[in-house]
Amino acid sequence: MKQNHRLIMGKNCISEVLRNSPERIEKVFTVKTNSNDSLYKELQKNRVPIKHVGKHDLSELVDSTSHQSYIAAVKSRNLLNIHDFLESVSEKEQCFVLMLDSIFDPHNFGAILRTAECFGVDCVVYSKNRGADLTPVVSKVSSGASELTPLMKVSNLAESAKLFQDEGFAVISADVGDDSHSIYDFNYPEKTLLILGSEGEGVQKLLRKRSDYIVKIPMQGNIDSLNVSQAASVFLFAYRCQNK
Amino acid sequence: MKQNHRLIMGKNCISEVLRNSPERIEKVFTVKTNSNDSLYKELQKNRVPIKHVGKHDLSELVDSTSHQSYIAAVKSRNLLNIHDFLESVSEKEQCFVLMLDSIFDPHNFGAILRTAECFGVDCVVYSKNRGADLTPVVSKVSSGASELTPLMKVSNLAESAKLFQDEGFAVISADVGDDSHSIYDFNYPEKTLLILGSEGEGVQKLLRKRSDYIVKIPMQGNIDSLNVSQAASVFLFAYRCQNK
Repeated sequence: MKQNHRLIMGKNCISEVLRNSPERIEKVFTVKTNSNDSLYKELQKNRVPIKHVGKHDLSELVDSTSHQSYIAAVKSRNLLNIHDFLESVSEKEQCFVLMLDSIFDPHNFGAILRTAECFGVDCVVYSKNRGADLTPVVSKVSSGASELTPLMKVSNLAESAKLFQDEGFAVISADVGDDSHSIYDFNYPEKTLLILGSEGEGVQKLLRKRSDYIVKIPMQGNIDSLNVSQAASVFLFAYRCQNK
Repeated sequence: MKQNHRLIMGKNCISEVLRNSPERIEKVFTVKTNSNDSLYKELQKNRVPIKHVGKHDLSELVDSTSHQSYIAAVKSRNLLNIHDFLESVSEKEQCFVLMLDSIFDPHNFGAILRTAECFGVDCVVYSKNRGADLTPVVSKVSSGASELTPLMKVSNLAESAKLFQDEGFAVISADVGDDSHSIYDFNYPEKTLLILGSEGEGVQKLLRKRSDYIVKIPMQGNIDSLNVSQAASVFLFAYRCQNK
């Protein structure tokens, strides 16, 4: 089964997908005792096939115990093609794209997707090799954003950044350094590709070098840095403050 | 042992406490094979007593497997008294205090503490009963902020909010409703007590009613709301934009 469907999990996650894209849910696995839940009833109302399984089987299905007794098999989602995307936004005045470099922690990846969805980013670009993929854990942490936010998966982040740049996007790396602008004083270009790197390593050298701007969130306490998903919230909010 | 010390865990967490308040660390438990780690060497340099134990024993100690092979016993930390705190800030022009209502998830609690530390909030107020306490998981997720950020633990959130109000603080609840101001247009009073509620329930009625303002982060996507710790990042950053 694992090979034919993508699995997502968690109550909020499945609720959000049901509310926004019910046609994507092919089947839900849950325990029989959930049948009085509001989510269960919503699933029935939407005629989603429900299969009762044991709790242990649920955990086996997703190799995790944090499914909250709800797992859904969903249709594979459409990922954006970079050329089509760039063409589709060529006439837009504002466009905000997030690029993720080496976000391997599924909790961070999921949390960033949720934030990206909430702030309505135009696309999240992630790497085939340098980072986590769309796993059930990611779907749960993202509250379903993994299924709802426009996504693009690319083989080469640096080459992709170059294509964005060629189409008039400013490439901005979130990183600390002598050349960093403070986010408090920074004016985002209307078309922005913002790159977030891993917590340990930051943005990879090649991408950093290619960037038009380096931007940081100045810290006011003793701890070195925000968690990358919280930094994402700050950078996205700051963009929206300027471009509502 | 559990009864005499507080335990914190995780590499980043212990590194940050070692860097900022080394005197608080009484002893570190780790595995012998870590002795070439940079953290291990830093601990030795600071003459922190190190005890080698097995991985399984580490997990037993904190009832969790996410200790990254580092657990520290720390001195109990000082918590602020509300009257002392209010007196100490009575002459300050700016003061930002975060109050947490029913944040039971230790990951959210830890993440909020990290954000609070990074944005230099003056104090985080949390409840004796309505929310998580300072557990090893919280310390790890907070990257040590649980040990570094000024904290106040109170029995009654509503009564405490009233005391802040009496001292000139504006009480602001983060919540959605017809009466909510958008964070994009909101001018924070210089002395602010911001209340964050649980993701499911929001801020409790009594606190909401007592608030001078209700503020929301308008959503631009399909998902209902940000994770509470990411909302915290946005609200704190927005305050700092106005009061650097």
